[in-house]
Amino acid sequence: MIQRPRGTRDFGPKEMEARRDLENDFRRVAERFGFREIETPIFEHAELFTLKSGPNIIEEMYAFEDKGGRQIALRPELTAPAMRFFVNDLTNMPRPLKVYYFGQCFRYERPQSGRFREFFQFGAELIGAPTPESDAEIIGLAAAMIAVSGLGEYRIRVGHIGVLRSMLKDAGVAQEMVAGILQKLDKKVYNEARPLMMDAGMSDDSIEAVVKLTETTGPVAVLDEFPGEASDYLRTVFKVLEAYGVTNVEVDLGVVRGLDYYTGIVFEIDAPKLGAEKQVCGGGSYSLTELFGGEKVFSTGFAIGFDRVMIALEREGYKSKEHGVIAYVIPVSEGMRTQAHSIAAEMRNSGIAADVDLMRRSLGKNFKYADSIGARFAVIVGENEMAEGSVAVRDLKSGEQRLVKRNELVSTLQKEESGARSRCGGEN
Amino acid sequence: MIQRPRGTRDFGPKEMEARRDLENDFRRVAERFGFREIETPIFEHAELFTLKSGPNIIEEMYAFEDKGGRQIALRPELTAPAMRFFVNDLTNMPRPLKVYYFGQCFRYERPQSGRFREFFQFGAELIGAPTPESDAEIIGLAAAMIAVSGLGEYRIRVGHIGVLRSMLKDAGVAQEMVAGILQKLDKKVYNEARPLMMDAGMSDDSIEAVVKLTETTGPVAVLDEFPGEASDYLRTVFKVLEAYGVTNVEVDLGVVRGLDYYTGIVFEIDAPKLGAEKQVCGGGSYSLTELFGGEKVFSTGFAIGFDRVMIALEREGYKSKEHGVIAYVIPVSEGMRTQAHSIAAEMRNSGIAADVDLMRRSLGKNFKYADSIGARFAVIVGENEMAEGSVAVRDLKSGEQRLVKRNELVSTLQKEESGARSRCGGEN
Repeated sequence: MIQRPRGTRDFGPKEMEARRDLENDFRRVAERFGFREIETPIFEHAELFTLKSGPNIIEEMYAFEDKGGRQIALRPELTAPAMRFFVNDLTNMPRPLKVYYFGQCFRYERPQSGRFREFFQFGAELIGAPTPESDAEIIGLAAAMIAVSGLGEYRIRVGHIGVLRSMLKDAGVAQEMVAGILQKLDKKVYNEARPLMMDAGMSDDSIEAVVKLTETTGPVAVLDEFPGEASDYLRTVFKVLEAYGVTNVEVDLGVVRGLDYYTGIVFEIDAPKLGAEKQVCGGGSYSLTELFGGEKVFSTGFAIGFDRVMIALEREGYKSKEHGVIAYVIPVSEGMRTQAHSIAAEMRNSGIAADVDLMRRSLGKNFKYADSIGARFAVIVGENEMAEGSVAVRDLKSGEQRLVKRNELVSTLQKEESGARSRCGGEN
Repeated sequence: MIQRPRGTRDFGPKEMEARRDLENDFRRVAERFGFREIETPIFEHAELFTLKSGPNIIEEMYAFEDKGGRQIALRPELTAPAMRFFVNDLTNMPRPLKVYYFGQCFRYERPQSGRFREFFQFGAELIGAPTPESDAEIIGLAAAMIAVSGLGEYRIRVGHIGVLRSMLKDAGVAQEMVAGILQKLDKKVYNEARPLMMDAGMSDDSIEAVVKLTETTGPVAVLDEFPGEASDYLRTVFKVLEAYGVTNVEVDLGVVRGLDYYTGIVFEIDAPKLGAEKQVCGGGSYSLTELFGGEKVFSTGFAIGFDRVMIALEREGYKSKEHGVIAYVIPVSEGMRTQAHSIAAEMRNSGIAADVDLMRRSLGKNFKYADSIGARFAVIVGENEMAEGSVAVRDLKSGEQRLVKRNELVSTLQKEESGARSRCGGEN
């Protein structure tokens, strides 16, 4: 047998249905917020990612040389491709430009629980609107998406990288030392951050103030201890979030996200059920376009780890929707086979999901198969009933069976179909 | 600027909406036929594809070595991965197993019109039901999918590889020479096929009979000239297709599909508007599982070239559905900003796609933006109107403006939303 490559997954019908349901929920919410989908290639020139994340990322990517000798890489994330697309082709679109995307990403590392070599991200970027309202819109969208997923337990923590950056600057830290310190603070490894801050010439008091800052969490009032522009900005973001009805957010000045291109607010959503790999969403405002050869444009966005949300939902015992056809049509005899196909076609043409015996099986085996594929009803096409213009319809859950007029079959089952396909209903 | 890799594409919002509409139409039809989605990784071990298509395919694939020294390839098609998945994990599922899939495929060749290095396929496989009904089901599904796409001009041509194979066998052609001859006949290069048939010891009469066979097209009656098992089988397939109401199909015994693993019926759908690259769908019954280490299982399926259908629709001037938010909320003054956000949130929570000013723009600039993103209505939130419990709603197509009670706003716009979102309606 040929195995699938290590660290990748196949998804069977049941798993795919649950995944598509979540994806469609995400899409619906994003579109309600006025975001529109874009799609970029599975692979990019490797330099796109080294420009954004530094040369070390090459080690963590599926990178290979194409026949023209250029370094190509399977995309490790989707923000860089989205911003490359923006710089190349979308700068003339009306702003703010609100886009979302969903797709596979790849990282070349030892596969482990909750981390796959091929994984899926759902993300959004709001480009060209440098206001607190934009950041609130992005956080509000992420919050609405996690809420619609059905996840019960999660925390949304919002910080502002500017609070910390200005504190480091005021303490006299040189620009070139900031990134290293932020990376250690991001991971909360204070025993490594402290020596770096000392090397940067910070006083003991300033160092403790920084540590205290990154441990500051709570309601918006905790910002009062750290006056300044960044705090004011964050306060406005929280005010808009309140107008949006998003109240399950807290300030966490320890959200640092150790990457250079973040410029303002930063936020994370955790699902505690996931343990060490608990982060399901990360985002913030950033500046990347100028790295890719464009003008500087304010952007804010996030990415949701789609697989992690799926795993968190599973751990919470989330029950996914039932799928499966409404009707399974069974000809009782060989002479009824053509009739059975016509009936199946009529149902399908009327929008009813229907299946039909393709194996020339006995009635009993057909019932068993209909049950195994989760069909709601069996439609039994018999000579005698058809002669009287009827077919038998059996409810496969209750076992109840009744005769239905042939010309009322579609309307009868259409009611069942619209009941079952709640996906298109008015739910949130 | 960093360019996207050669032969790949980015899809902007408008193009993505048209593509997702088509994809969703395809999904809906497949699910109505009782097919369920599966998904496999973007890359596979290269041997999966060389086993199926021969070693030459390596040259046409994006292949690279992983860190473990194994040959990995970006998938050039989706049938082999689907059957690998079946052999590995799905052999215990109830049969027939009906699956569909949609995703990116890759081929490493000079990019040209209608052929991309990254392209999209939508396919379906019906596994484990060795009956003419199964073949009819697969052809019926392909026909229903092309019909729902809105394509006006296309031909569905169905043949049976067995008719030709048995004629070659009867003419004394050795088994090992069959594949080479079929490949030439598939491409209708008779000047190359003839010498091969002569080398294989065929008489002039048999050769001309073969040529005549591959030029045979028309209604099912043309099969009368070629009696035998394969013709009888094909006749039954056409009978079931008729019961399904699929009458726009014709027999074409020249559909050969020059690959060894096809075993019975073979079919193609062409869109003449596409010129040389006119084939939008190809399929047939085949046997692959035993190549991948499983038991031999009858399978029948097809793949639709998603990009080609999109291009054919464009050439026919197909007008895609309008998307865009229902409402764009504009605060008239700074004091109304929070109200505007609350109104946008209320609409979104009620299932209405809504956007809101994030740029603190003037009324005039907001109208311009609302228009540019295709919003249907502007909701104007002014101090005086709000004091009287109303907002102004302006139809951005007609320019008409009226006052709507604040507490009736959602129900008023919900009616517009359900009108616009015909995607979830009862259409075919």
